[in-house]
Amino acid sequence: MTPSEDSADELLGRVLLCRVIEPGDEAGGRWVREFGVGEVVRRLREGVSALPGVSEGRWAGLVARARRARPERDLAVAGEAGARFVVPGGAEWPGQLDDLGDARPIGLWVRGRPSLRMWALRSVAVVGARACTEYGTHVAATLAGGLAERGWVVVSGGAYGIDGAAHRGALAARGATVAVLACGVDRPYPRGHAALISRIADQGLVVGELPPGDHPTPSRFILRNRVIAALTRGTVVVEAACRSGSLATARAAERLGRFTMGVPGPVTSALSAGVHELLRAGAALVTDAAEVVELVGDMGDLAPPRRGPVLPRDLLEPASRAVLAALPGNRAATVEEIALGVPTTRDEAIAKLYELRALGYVERHGDGWKLTRQAMMSVRTGHGPC
Amino acid sequence: MTPSEDSADELLGRVLLCRVIEPGDEAGGRWVREFGVGEVVRRLREGVSALPGVSEGRWAGLVARARRARPERDLAVAGEAGARFVVPGGAEWPGQLDDLGDARPIGLWVRGRPSLRMWALRSVAVVGARACTEYGTHVAATLAGGLAERGWVVVSGGAYGIDGAAHRGALAARGATVAVLACGVDRPYPRGHAALISRIADQGLVVGELPPGDHPTPSRFILRNRVIAALTRGTVVVEAACRSGSLATARAAERLGRFTMGVPGPVTSALSAGVHELLRAGAALVTDAAEVVELVGDMGDLAPPRRGPVLPRDLLEPASRAVLAALPGNRAATVEEIALGVPTTRDEAIAKLYELRALGYVERHGDGWKLTRQAMMSVRTGHGPC
Repeated sequence: MTPSEDSADELLGRVLLCRVIEPGDEAGGRWVREFGVGEVVRRLREGVSALPGVSEGRWAGLVARARRARPERDLAVAGEAGARFVVPGGAEWPGQLDDLGDARPIGLWVRGRPSLRMWALRSVAVVGARACTEYGTHVAATLAGGLAERGWVVVSGGAYGIDGAAHRGALAARGATVAVLACGVDRPYPRGHAALISRIADQGLVVGELPPGDHPTPSRFILRNRVIAALTRGTVVVEAACRSGSLATARAAERLGRFTMGVPGPVTSALSAGVHELLRAGAALVTDAAEVVELVGDMGDLAPPRRGPVLPRDLLEPASRAVLAALPGNRAATVEEIALGVPTTRDEAIAKLYELRALGYVERHGDGWKLTRQAMMSVRTGHGPC
Repeated sequence: MTPSEDSADELLGRVLLCRVIEPGDEAGGRWVREFGVGEVVRRLREGVSALPGVSEGRWAGLVARARRARPERDLAVAGEAGARFVVPGGAEWPGQLDDLGDARPIGLWVRGRPSLRMWALRSVAVVGARACTEYGTHVAATLAGGLAERGWVVVSGGAYGIDGAAHRGALAARGATVAVLACGVDRPYPRGHAALISRIADQGLVVGELPPGDHPTPSRFILRNRVIAALTRGTVVVEAACRSGSLATARAAERLGRFTMGVPGPVTSALSAGVHELLRAGAALVTDAAEVVELVGDMGDLAPPRRGPVLPRDLLEPASRAVLAALPGNRAATVEEIALGVPTTRDEAIAKLYELRALGYVERHGDGWKLTRQAMMSVRTGHGPC
């Protein structure tokens, strides 16, 4: 087999496995780590030599699932919905998901233009209650807008309430946002957010572990939260009752060494009680986007510039180079102006600008974007910004 | 001179000094510490041999103040208003005020039946903004009521807003409350709180450093806060704008090694911004009275009982012994029932019950009071509760 056939097999194998193994199933992750994708798929397909630690009944169930799986068809259906499949080790794989160990996703289905890996580098999760208050909606939207204005990517779960407000706040600020779903990315849940999620797929990213058409379950919601926690630098909980799912995201973030933050509210509100519990347990109290960025902001931003280039300008994709070239050298420009200069669409320009932001080439200034000092210097040297 | 003449001179000297030296003036505290009350008074009265570190102009001002002072008259006026003068080293002096060093009050004017020393042992300050919101009023009153129900004394500054709500909340729960004023205790400020402050003097304590008739000034408000901070186990700030006086109380509490706590509120409220700042700087987030008590509660309560008696029953004042004797041995009783059994007034019974609480003889159970286990055991041994 050629290497590319090999990696095509690995990809198809992972597509099959994500039909068979539930999100976050650590036994599945262990099999893949110990035997490799090919061997696990072979055993499941042939139905012989069960994998270690699996009961007879469970083995039969897994084999039946594997036999029903049609990975090529899944890829085709996903492709029609504009989704690609991103796998560990691939160019778009966000390395920080490896912190999940054997609970690392088998792969991720991704809808949207930007590079998930790039966007995740400078992302913060904003999560909270579905049945939130007007206070919560207001705070989540303002916070997400403020993060977007500072060049940060807002990640949430696409749900009603705080999640939706966070996505909308980021979009309203012409910012970057990622929805991590607990179902197939072609089958938006909740239905009432179909328009919002398709807007996110147009202007940002919609991501999920589950194969096309799959539906959410309570445990899938909970396990989805670990992906949000692992993907981001930190998690901000805006409103949460005691024992809520967003507290689980925050605790997962803490276990993974990410920043855990909470926005306080009235002590008379049951929807702030969970956040206050979190804050009393040691999470950082934040009241606005500036305080979040102060906490999660890369210390490297403040450190003296490194000597060598990290990613030379010449190694950028042509589309990214074109956007970079469209930025004026001496002032900030709006997304529209930059898109016109490439030329490309506004959404494509946003996708690339946030990627270039992650690489340190550009920074957001309110409504506009400008080259970083390092990027301006690298025009002369042909090197990356660092 | 006999010892009693000596201490009468010391008392009169301190009455005079509290007309001459402003609250919190550390130079004044140092003179008293270095030369003694008698010598400082002699020099001020004679106007010769200025005290160290005083400019000529300031010295003339102090001498003029001392010559105008009429300490016997101050004592008489205070006595008519039901106030006594409590001095360092005296039986009612709260020893924890000595933590203020040279900024320790020269003495304290006290209106009300209970022993300031006893009540201060189990006290918590609840302070906050004058121009507070309805949320703040509600939270302060509920918190103070909950503290009172748990047998804690609520200390505040008698001001409009949070302070008033805290006092009222404690009174409404038939609890103990202390107002520390920045003016003469016979001259309640603000005027609109005359009725409230006289109710506090009837049912609790009204305390201040300033001599009868004296008025508050901005700096006196700020320096009053150090007394609130030093007197109590901890300070809870309920609502405060950035740079508010109650934050100064909290910071003073922290410097003195007391617990500093804050009740969060909406991040959209400017009146919670100061509290959030305090919480971000390390103060403990509290949402109800139980959480406050969990923090400030004497660890000794949980420790195994000590062997020897702390204050044997026989050494209690007769009035306290009478209240203790009126408590049934096997159940909780209301204040009214206890007062009837002494017999005494309801206010007197409350005053004594909180003193006995500080000594570990009794505890509050919701609306009622009962003997502690240790107190029941000491009925047999004749020893104190510990």
